[in-house]
Amino acid sequence: MNKKMLNIDITKLFKMLGIAETNDGAFNGQWLKTGGKPIESVTPINGSVLAAVNAAEAEDYEKVMSSAQEAFKTWRMVPAPKRGDVIQSLGNELRKHKDNLGTLVSLEMGKIKVEGDGEVQEMIDICDFAVGLSRQLYGKTMHSERLQNRMYEQWHPLGILGLITSFNFPTAVWAWNFAVGSVCGDVTIWKPSSQVPLCAIATTRIVHKVLKEHGYPGAVASLLIGSGSVIGERMIADRRIPLISATGSTRMGKRIGEVVGSRLGRTILELGGNNAVIISHRSNLQMALQATLFGAVGTAGQRCTSTRRLIIHENVYDTFVNCLIDAYKQVRIGNPLDANVLMGPLIDPYAVDNMQIALQRLKKEGGRVLYGGDVLEGPTYPGGTYVKPCIAE
Amino acid sequence: MNKKMLNIDITKLFKMLGIAETNDGAFNGQWLKTGGKPIESVTPINGSVLAAVNAAEAEDYEKVMSSAQEAFKTWRMVPAPKRGDVIQSLGNELRKHKDNLGTLVSLEMGKIKVEGDGEVQEMIDICDFAVGLSRQLYGKTMHSERLQNRMYEQWHPLGILGLITSFNFPTAVWAWNFAVGSVCGDVTIWKPSSQVPLCAIATTRIVHKVLKEHGYPGAVASLLIGSGSVIGERMIADRRIPLISATGSTRMGKRIGEVVGSRLGRTILELGGNNAVIISHRSNLQMALQATLFGAVGTAGQRCTSTRRLIIHENVYDTFVNCLIDAYKQVRIGNPLDANVLMGPLIDPYAVDNMQIALQRLKKEGGRVLYGGDVLEGPTYPGGTYVKPCIAE
Amino acid sequence: MNKKMLNIDITKLFKMLGIAETNDGAFNGQWLKTGGKPIESVTPINGSVLAAVNAAEAEDYEKVMSSAQEAFKTWRMVPAPKRGDVIQSLGNELRKHKDNLGTLVSLEMGKIKVEGDGEVQEMIDICDFAVGLSRQLYGKTMHSERLQNRMYEQWHPLGILGLITSFNFPTAVWAWNFAVGSVCGDVTIWKPSSQVPLCAIATTRIVHKVLKEHGYPGAVASLLIGSGSVIGERMIADRRIPLISATGSTRMGKRIGEVVGSRLGRTILELGGNNAVIISHRSNLQMALQATLFGAVGTAGQRCTSTRRLIIHENVYDTFVNCLIDAYKQVRIGNPLDANVLMGPLIDPYAVDNMQIALQRLKKEGGRVLYGGDVLEGPTYPGGTYVKPCIAE
Amino acid sequence: MNKKMLNIDITKLFKMLGIAETNDGAFNGQWLKTGGKPIESVTPINGSVLAAVNAAEAEDYEKVMSSAQEAFKTWRMVPAPKRGDVIQSLGNELRKHKDNLGTLVSLEMGKIKVEGDGEVQEMIDICDFAVGLSRQLYGKTMHSERLQNRMYEQWHPLGILGLITSFNFPTAVWAWNFAVGSVCGDVTIWKPSSQVPLCAIATTRIVHKVLKEHGYPGAVASLLIGSGSVIGERMIADRRIPLISATGSTRMGKRIGEVVGSRLGRTILELGGNNAVIISHRSNLQMALQATLFGAVGTAGQRCTSTRRLIIHENVYDTFVNCLIDAYKQVRIGNPLDANVLMGPLIDPYAVDNMQIALQRLKKEGGRVLYGGDVLEGPTYPGGTYVKPCIAE
Repeated sequence: MNKKMLNIDITKLFKMLGIAETNDGAFNGQWLKTGGKPIESVTPINGSVLAAVNAAEAEDYEKVMSSAQEAFKTWRMVPAPKRGDVIQSLGNELRKHKDNLGTLVSLEMGKIKVEGDGEVQEMIDICDFAVGLSRQLYGKTMHSERLQNRMYEQWHPLGILGLITSFNFPTAVWAWNFAVGSVCGDVTIWKPSSQVPLCAIATTRIVHKVLKEHGYPGAVASLLIGSGSVIGERMIADRRIPLISATGSTRMGKRIGEVVGSRLGRTILELGGNNAVIISHRSNLQMALQATLFGAVGTAGQRCTSTRRLIIHENVYDTFVNCLIDAYKQVRIGNPLDANVLMGPLIDPYAVDNMQIALQRLKKEGGRVLYGGDVLEGPTYPGGTYVKPCIAE
Repeated sequence: MNKKMLNIDITKLFKMLGIAETNDGAFNGQWLKTGGKPIESVTPINGSVLAAVNAAEAEDYEKVMSSAQEAFKTWRMVPAPKRGDVIQSLGNELRKHKDNLGTLVSLEMGKIKVEGDGEVQEMIDICDFAVGLSRQLYGKTMHSERLQNRMYEQWHPLGILGLITSFNFPTAVWAWNFAVGSVCGDVTIWKPSSQVPLCAIATTRIVHKVLKEHGYPGAVASLLIGSGSVIGERMIADRRIPLISATGSTRMGKRIGEVVGSRLGRTILELGGNNAVIISHRSNLQMALQATLFGAVGTAGQRCTSTRRLIIHENVYDTFVNCLIDAYKQVRIGNPLDANVLMGPLIDPYAVDNMQIALQRLKKEGGRVLYGGDVLEGPTYPGGTYVKPCIAE
Repeated sequence: MNKKMLNIDITKLFKMLGIAETNDGAFNGQWLKTGGKPIESVTPINGSVLAAVNAAEAEDYEKVMSSAQEAFKTWRMVPAPKRGDVIQSLGNELRKHKDNLGTLVSLEMGKIKVEGDGEVQEMIDICDFAVGLSRQLYGKTMHSERLQNRMYEQWHPLGILGLITSFNFPTAVWAWNFAVGSVCGDVTIWKPSSQVPLCAIATTRIVHKVLKEHGYPGAVASLLIGSGSVIGERMIADRRIPLISATGSTRMGKRIGEVVGSRLGRTILELGGNNAVIISHRSNLQMALQATLFGAVGTAGQRCTSTRRLIIHENVYDTFVNCLIDAYKQVRIGNPLDANVLMGPLIDPYAVDNMQIALQRLKKEGGRVLYGGDVLEGPTYPGGTYVKPCIAE
Repeated sequence: MNKKMLNIDITKLFKMLGIAETNDGAFNGQWLKTGGKPIESVTPINGSVLAAVNAAEAEDYEKVMSSAQEAFKTWRMVPAPKRGDVIQSLGNELRKHKDNLGTLVSLEMGKIKVEGDGEVQEMIDICDFAVGLSRQLYGKTMHSERLQNRMYEQWHPLGILGLITSFNFPTAVWAWNFAVGSVCGDVTIWKPSSQVPLCAIATTRIVHKVLKEHGYPGAVASLLIGSGSVIGERMIADRRIPLISATGSTRMGKRIGEVVGSRLGRTILELGGNNAVIISHRSNLQMALQATLFGAVGTAGQRCTSTRRLIIHENVYDTFVNCLIDAYKQVRIGNPLDANVLMGPLIDPYAVDNMQIALQRLKKEGGRVLYGGDVLEGPTYPGGTYVKPCIAE
């Protein structure tokens, strides 16, 4: 592809973030020479290929697991405030890379640049939180009912955390889990979505640099880029991973709940939502309008907390819906790296197809589209990933 | 006095609560033969004397202090949940005496019977709270920054708590302090207001019975009835009392703050208030009216949290004030043991005098009385302690 | 059977606890006329039948579920401290029934009377704890990073808790779950082990009495006695039960983890253990001996926390083992209602068979029995449920 | 003085930290032209004058107070996590100045360089802690006993904190109070010890830079260098300062307790100690020796937590004391900026005099000096501030 997109020099960006044209897909302290089928990272901005990643395979999985087990033996003995020092440095390192990493998020996932930067800011914020937490990992002391006995909690790390993240937050979800988990003494193995592997590689390079400077093994933050069937299934069934923290579809969540439950493991699941906003006749309609717009159109409606339903009081129904249609009309759609654009593309053409299928079903069931839903075409909208946001009743 | 007042048989009541015609004023596990000037307990209902208490003197103080120190050595070693068992029994014992003790509160202090019973209910509630607390006296464990070190809090009892309580809550304030303090392993010395000594004696008898049944020294809950100059000043200056918890006037609070502060002791001070209610033009006026009435007239305005000021939006000013005057007119004043009465007497004729002086100053400063303030006279209002509640602007 | 066993008058005991010769197996505010196959409660003391319970069936399940849903609508609206009042009463009611209920536990499950009473004491203790908790159900308020915003947690009850309990603690495990869950606003459906249904019936009668006195629906504490395939499987698969709390075998726990996980429900699982005691050469051997004896032989080794393994320093190995054998020899085995007995029978002859099979496997694998393991016979040991405790290496 | 001391270029150091030859002694967002009597900062290393500070006077006090009140109005409205961002920057800024500021602490106060740097590290650590705290300023939500009511705590900042710090920790104590207080929304007025004013000026310059970069008023961290009678007494009596946090002598603490107590203010007092170490005959004597040496000789015995007493089991008394004397003999005393030195000078000749007086009293009372106590003289020990550490019995 043209390595310049708008005012972004992709070659330079990739160099600064350590992205090659073809990248290895597994990290356990060093980058393993993965030999799996290449995964292409395609930008939804224009459908061009940004770079490729050789998928991790079963043998890579075992190498990563084995190094993570070793790293855990070291990491669990590091006093929590010292672990916090590492995360303090990670926060500062992310501050330095905020612009570049935010751009990469925007480029690979398609969310607008402000949101891409905001995602990196969330990484920074959780680092600050976790640094404080590293000195506030409180357990309880309790009074016993027995004479001259005393009881207290002593928290031990769990072990290896399996992190499975989805395309819509390519870096922040990892950071939430890693920052908090690692000050607690856990090490992590990250399986990112195959749609956004470059963000995972860039992030892993940053955290690796910090771990190295502090003299800790890189396998504290391991990475496995690969398919769900090869990597994901192995992770969820693996008794060496006491906790799976996963973000994704409800279908995926149920599968994980079943497999991890049957081996008495633990899960943290952040799955799909069906958020609604209730507009009362007493609402401040201006504020409700902004909140709805932000909630429904932000990240092109691809957040788990995206607003999907409006429940509107009949007295203000017409007024509000008309205002909302007007507002939707003014949403500027296009290249998410353009500062004037408010809504970027969907993640890929399949997502566009699924949206169209949902709209057809809506119509068949008697629903009515009040605005939008169209697929956008022409030179401004390359790649078939741009749509008008849709209001239906 | 006539030992029958309305439908209350005082002789029987006193017998059940262990009140004699003349009572000793100090308890340290047993009732000391106090020889101080008798303190008469006068009911504000009709100004008659209920009973007398021989005041505790300096030598009684030392005996009580000495027993409290001994009792602390035992009590601090009792596991907290076992201390909770004692408070559990105290709560149940108070449930049994609720009617009688509530009546005594009403009789001696003058608050209406519902409030007297409510005060005992507050004692019961804090017992329930403290029983739970006895198994939830949590400290913190913390992660150290040093290798293989760990830190944890271990809570130790303070020692002897000095409790100084005022006339308006003759039993509940003691209970709040005692219940929580004693599950924590502290013992208490209580100096109640000389206006309500019988409530303190009755309460001490109840807690003594419970302590005895469980086999613990009565000095865990000691009592000293006497003057501020002899008992109060000794307590606040005494380095053997690490914490003074006092309820009363702001003037008293400042004195305690100064004396206890200069010996590096600790204080819990619950002093006078100047509470205001703000009535916005958007308020639910009916609810505001009830809240104001309850806040201002409840306990005849003698609570530290009594409503003393109203700040009313001009749009609703006249409406609200007129409604409030109407409501005040309907407040039935009289014998607090009469179930139809909503407002009893003030604590004594001095309180009535002080109120009249304040009203005169108010008028001199240009204030205007909108309703009430009069001293009530006649056979229904014996003792010179009944007033009409007052609204001024 | 002979309705008198030692000094226990079973007829009287059953009358006081509300146990009939044949009992209904489902309670949803009233006792449903269950028509399932009768479950016989057999005492392991001598193998005789104590009483029968008609098992709950699918239609009973639906009735109980439906009433629980209704009860939840009421119960969740009751302020937590008011719910605490109910549990306070429950604690006091259990204090009254402690002796009888403790005897029933001993009779039906076979643990010695002291342990039976201790189990009821645990019920009482958790009530005290939960009463305090009802006023300490704290959430957090947090400072937002947004101007003039504030955040706070508001805890809502989950809904219907499914409680599945095992034979070894016929009443305490229910109490832990019920007391804490119900002050939080949850209602419960209890499926006890079919080996100890009478304890569940007696307990349900006690809690029902308390709920009724306070004016709350009995379905707050529902009961379903029936088979795992009919009742248990329905519960774990039922999306109307957001939380399953279960005690039992690891095999059962994995099954529950899988089924509940696949519907994104939550579990609290208390499963089998394999506890070890480490005896260092620096140990206080006398204390270690007592702890081992208590840990291994208490409840006839049928606790999830029973000591199953000893790891002994070679320097003290012989000494300690010999002392332990001596101690084992002195353990008086027999009728658990006899105050001199320290170890009662196993729960049933199947448990005895399983123990014998395990011992045979041990020998085959080269293990050596140092003491005991024999099945006891003769008139003192009726029913085939008594064994000598075993030490093997 | 010679502006070069060992390998330290003082001129350069002062330039980097913003110290002039004569400095203003009050900061309220800008440096006020204070006209009070100059306070000379004298290094205990050789008794030479480092620089002077014009003392703040009554009118400066009022200006600082007035700006602090204004600054509080702004600062209290800043969301806590945003306040945390400022402290995050402060931590990073202190990391940059660690070497220089640590040297200044060593130079002005006389503690060895490692301890000077360590003191700055404590400032950094508390910043990390406070940044986390800024997102974890939790209050409680509670369940009410009233229907459909809810209760929650909302923490508000107190206002202006008065910080009074002593010579022995010229910067860390301020940092503990400022970092935690300021994320809570409080602003501070700092009165440092007149013996170490330069450390306070350097610290204030650093925090001012950070506040400015973030766009907040400098008066969030105000400074008043002046006498106890002019500045200190004003602060403790000032009702605009709700909390006084002071470190210093017990005599000073009692005075503050009295004055602040009498105006119902709050205090945090960190006063003198009389720490003891107990050496049991079972102790690891090597570890006990190191701990004692570190506890007694560290900071030349001038910490509030300095070890002052040893209680030694008779069986190990002679052995331990002899080892300790040997260890004391090897303590290298001298210029604290010399990396080989373990113990620097006392703060000034008065401290040396007081020590000698105490030793004379000890002898008069029958005590015996086992080692040291001598004042050191000669060119290596200029200024009359060096002593041999002393062991007495």
